[in-house]
Amino acid sequence: MAEQERKRIVIENVKPEIDEGRFAIKRVIGEKVGVTADVFSDGHDSPAARLLYQKHGRAEWLEIVMSFLENDRWGGEFIVDELGAYQYTVEAWVDHFKTWRHAIVKKFEDGQDIHVDLQIGARYLEKGSQRASGEDAERLKDLSEAIKNEINQERAVLLATGQEAVQLMNGYPDLSFAVRYCRELRIIVERPKALYSTWYECFPRSCSEQPGRHGSLSDCERILPEIARMGFDVLYLPPIHPIGRTNRKGKNNSPVASPDDPGSPWAIGTEEGGHKAIHPRLGTEEDFESLVKKAAQQGIEVAMDLAFQCSPDHPYVKEHPAWFRWRPDGSVQYAENPPKKYEDIYPINFESSEWRELWEELRSVVLFWMDRGIRIFRVDNPHTKPFPFWEWLIGGIRKDYPEVIFLAEAFTRPKVMNRLAKLGFNQSYTYFTWRNSKKEITDYMLELTQTEQKEYFRPNFWPNTPDILPEFLQYGGRPAFVIKLILAATLSSNYGVYGPAFELCVSEALSGKEEYLNSEKYEIKHWDGDQAGNLKQFIARVNRIRKENPALQTTWNLKFYEVDNEYLLFYGKESEDGTESLLTVVNLDPYHTQSGWLKIPIEEFGISPDQPYLCHDLLSDDKYIWQGERNQVELNPHILPAYIFKMRKRLKRETDFDYFM
Amino acid sequence: MAEQERKRIVIENVKPEIDEGRFAIKRVIGEKVGVTADVFSDGHDSPAARLLYQKHGRAEWLEIVMSFLENDRWGGEFIVDELGAYQYTVEAWVDHFKTWRHAIVKKFEDGQDIHVDLQIGARYLEKGSQRASGEDAERLKDLSEAIKNEINQERAVLLATGQEAVQLMNGYPDLSFAVRYCRELRIIVERPKALYSTWYECFPRSCSEQPGRHGSLSDCERILPEIARMGFDVLYLPPIHPIGRTNRKGKNNSPVASPDDPGSPWAIGTEEGGHKAIHPRLGTEEDFESLVKKAAQQGIEVAMDLAFQCSPDHPYVKEHPAWFRWRPDGSVQYAENPPKKYEDIYPINFESSEWRELWEELRSVVLFWMDRGIRIFRVDNPHTKPFPFWEWLIGGIRKDYPEVIFLAEAFTRPKVMNRLAKLGFNQSYTYFTWRNSKKEITDYMLELTQTEQKEYFRPNFWPNTPDILPEFLQYGGRPAFVIKLILAATLSSNYGVYGPAFELCVSEALSGKEEYLNSEKYEIKHWDGDQAGNLKQFIARVNRIRKENPALQTTWNLKFYEVDNEYLLFYGKESEDGTESLLTVVNLDPYHTQSGWLKIPIEEFGISPDQPYLCHDLLSDDKYIWQGERNQVELNPHILPAYIFKMRKRLKRETDFDYFM
Repeated sequence: MAEQERKRIVIENVKPEIDEGRFAIKRVIGEKVGVTADVFSDGHDSPAARLLYQKHGRAEWLEIVMSFLENDRWGGEFIVDELGAYQYTVEAWVDHFKTWRHAIVKKFEDGQDIHVDLQIGARYLEKGSQRASGEDAERLKDLSEAIKNEINQERAVLLATGQEAVQLMNGYPDLSFAVRYCRELRIIVERPKALYSTWYECFPRSCSEQPGRHGSLSDCERILPEIARMGFDVLYLPPIHPIGRTNRKGKNNSPVASPDDPGSPWAIGTEEGGHKAIHPRLGTEEDFESLVKKAAQQGIEVAMDLAFQCSPDHPYVKEHPAWFRWRPDGSVQYAENPPKKYEDIYPINFESSEWRELWEELRSVVLFWMDRGIRIFRVDNPHTKPFPFWEWLIGGIRKDYPEVIFLAEAFTRPKVMNRLAKLGFNQSYTYFTWRNSKKEITDYMLELTQTEQKEYFRPNFWPNTPDILPEFLQYGGRPAFVIKLILAATLSSNYGVYGPAFELCVSEALSGKEEYLNSEKYEIKHWDGDQAGNLKQFIARVNRIRKENPALQTTWNLKFYEVDNEYLLFYGKESEDGTESLLTVVNLDPYHTQSGWLKIPIEEFGISPDQPYLCHDLLSDDKYIWQGERNQVELNPHILPAYIFKMRKRLKRETDFDYFM
Repeated sequence: MAEQERKRIVIENVKPEIDEGRFAIKRVIGEKVGVTADVFSDGHDSPAARLLYQKHGRAEWLEIVMSFLENDRWGGEFIVDELGAYQYTVEAWVDHFKTWRHAIVKKFEDGQDIHVDLQIGARYLEKGSQRASGEDAERLKDLSEAIKNEINQERAVLLATGQEAVQLMNGYPDLSFAVRYCRELRIIVERPKALYSTWYECFPRSCSEQPGRHGSLSDCERILPEIARMGFDVLYLPPIHPIGRTNRKGKNNSPVASPDDPGSPWAIGTEEGGHKAIHPRLGTEEDFESLVKKAAQQGIEVAMDLAFQCSPDHPYVKEHPAWFRWRPDGSVQYAENPPKKYEDIYPINFESSEWRELWEELRSVVLFWMDRGIRIFRVDNPHTKPFPFWEWLIGGIRKDYPEVIFLAEAFTRPKVMNRLAKLGFNQSYTYFTWRNSKKEITDYMLELTQTEQKEYFRPNFWPNTPDILPEFLQYGGRPAFVIKLILAATLSSNYGVYGPAFELCVSEALSGKEEYLNSEKYEIKHWDGDQAGNLKQFIARVNRIRKENPALQTTWNLKFYEVDNEYLLFYGKESEDGTESLLTVVNLDPYHTQSGWLKIPIEEFGISPDQPYLCHDLLSDDKYIWQGERNQVELNPHILPAYIFKMRKRLKRETDFDYFM
């Protein structure tokens, strides 16, 4: 029977907590951490609880008083304001003084003789005074004496249950039987860009002004202002390394390449170098560093692709044969997804006996590009490499460079995607690419934002990628691109497009597949960005709305609202301070005009049914004066398939007049 | 980089698992333990998983092959057949041979040249042969050779993927990178009565044949046949100890007792003794042992009340003053729930500095009655004593006496009730007492039977107790008693009544309260069990149906079905072997006849819409021949407010004729 056994309080079901604390939750600087826990003891005594948190490495815990919510659940919250690791836990105890206070009031109101009870209360204050020091100890001592000597029982009760006594006693709780939750839970705090980023993916080799010429990093530098004008702040480059010649793929993934075919950038490595080299026709390390610098000047960060696989010509194949799987005929096992074969690519064998050297080498690739200014990596197919490798790699890098962002390009099964996010990836590709109907989108968004997943899985929405031209975009025409862009940009604070194929609404696919016809993965393109019908102006407007409205710079504040048409999706996001909301209505039907009655949550905005209010559509800049919760909208996808209404919360002092300004 | 890091498999979300394995799940002998887990690795390799379990203390683990369910979830199950503790865990690994088999089939069907792949397969078999021994090793070696030398690729594929190869290889998996789940989870296996028991509570002091005379344990012995006839198998006695005189309560909880008032049996202890003594007017230890013995002869176990509290006259007060809370005026703190006072009872102060002696003494009380043949305890207000105390007490007793059953009488907040169940109580009182509408009952049953709660919280349903005469019974007349009895007896495999007040449909309450008028807690009663309208025959019939139909001897097989009337509740329970089901329809309205269309789950019974089938009502013994899934019922609460239909599952070989037998 250990002394520990005398502790009567239970603390359990602490949230957030990922896999019993095995993984950290994620936040960016300035975000809130709300913690709840079941706290209870036997009997009818009142518990008290506090939330403890600290920046990793500091000695002191900061304390937040937790409030009773309901059904034995308690909650508290704090804001994280520094990059790096934090930890938090919960502490609770039986608060005898609180129990006593509740009882004495009931007894007094019942007309019972409470003189003995008052002596008990005076004792609690006396003991509190012994725990306190300085002035507080004096005041508690005085209060105790006053209650002991007060002849008027009502006045004594008022003294004992008054604000002064309560506040003083709360400051010096009796922690002799306090219980600490069984573990300290971790938070990884990242920079704001981990939560709010706008990505543009393009192939530098297609950036040349001259049709037919191999583009370079310098060509890419030239189009930076165009990318900035559209409002993107991350420029993600597919692999820029030398491309293998052995089994190089031709146009449209043909197993035979003509001498002019440039090959897939993901078939990395030639005798000229591998993952640390730059394709000679793209330029030099100096060109690369210049691009990174110029981009930064325009508010754009360059993101590199980490595709840990090799062409048959990669130096690793000769230098580290143990890193590959050898077949009985002496050949190296190429990538395959039977019956499909990818003979231009050798996967790395992570079950290699020389795995330690392999891991170190791959980390050195990351550090190599970090040395050249890179702080964002998009990781190709992370789900085909072992989980412990990523946890080691990302965890190690993060210790010294907490500002680095890794985006997981894992289009795979839900639990695998979640695991990658848990073990450290800061952002993740999602199923958004294939979610089109109201039910599909609503269900998916609720999963992303209303379940435990939100604590570790930060979505990054991509309507298209060089690998995926989804059916919706193949068949929905320009309106489909507009719809998906609005959805991506307003549902998720992280999103990206593969351009210029996106803004030019390129929709031709290989028959029956989600692959682009004449995919840029296998050939050099020359895009005419100013082609009629391009979405550049539109994208710029949407991204400006994101920039000007912090409500769109987070994904976690999403709320769905009612509209009586299955093709219309209606949702809102409120700013952190609660003063304004963006309400978005999207017509999900790229073919037909749809109309419906919205149910505006006027109560949330403090608007009464008889008050008119202003709805300002940020997309068209049109303004509407509405009244009551039901209002009709009509959206023609060929003109503009959405509204993004800005609504201000009505404060008490405002007059109706304010809304017409 | 530890070698451990090379293991690619993840095992998580193992169910059942209570609070990360902090608590055991519960089963009775013969019950199934179904275990599921998320099992996955990176990439596209096939995992394999097995469930390991063992009786506590044995060295060997038993292995069950787990099957893939869906979405990376795997499952397996086993049956526990011994009293005591078990443990289980999950093991998984990447199954390269399985991965290879799936690939070779696809490649072969695609017409690819697979001769190198076949060599790889032969290698896997060769390695398998090295892990095997004896004949299996030979056969694997032979298979490997056969595949290596087979010129016909089709025949080689058939050999490598055939049943023999698969079974042999599954017997000798390559476990070099196998992962064990991070913890071993515990099971407490109890005797069947923990799951299926029928309780009768009565006051021995009211058992005298002579009105006005104090009844005794011998009087109680006399009514055993009556209790057995009604089909009860547990006789629970309120405390039988000496009753304090100081501040003894009079009739109807009056603070003043007349000299004749016997007091509340829960005010335990006088100078004649405390928790180990028997009230002199109830009899002697010999009488008690005789009652226990005679009861056993009639299939009835006697359950004792453990009410750890004292009257002011209890010997503990003088012998162990430190076990009580003393007030500044030198008095002992009596029980209270302000403004209510219970001056005839002193609660024990578990925060006492002499808590170790206290715990030991209370355990000795349990052991004292166990020595006299008791194996079932009903624990009074366990939620007012510390959780660690119960965990220590029950855990310790269980180690030596795994057959002991503790029923928690905790009518309190859900999380507190759950905690008590988790830490060891075998059965628990519930909110059933107050659940009357279809929605209330359905929601509550789903919570009890479809959530994690079912792994540790075994409900015991009580329509009434000496403390609680719920409104439904106060106002619903005899039909209300019949309805609640049927619900208790068919929804929960553990249930009990407080009699004879129950079978005599006693419904008079203290005005505006749920307390009985002239409660037996404060006075001696003389019941006329054969009074007109008594439910004895009816109770006997219901309990016989429970006894004859194992489907009603568990709570976990409950399923609700559709009926188009909000006052009718329709549910079924299937026998473990799946051959028969009991379908119960109850009219929840004690006043009016209700009718409705049932949707009989004929598909579950293998009955096609055009086949007639027999419904045998076990309550009335009436038989009906129905056809199709929609059938009408009408239930008059004044006659019989329920049907309990017995349905047999139609097997292929049966003819329609069978159903008329």
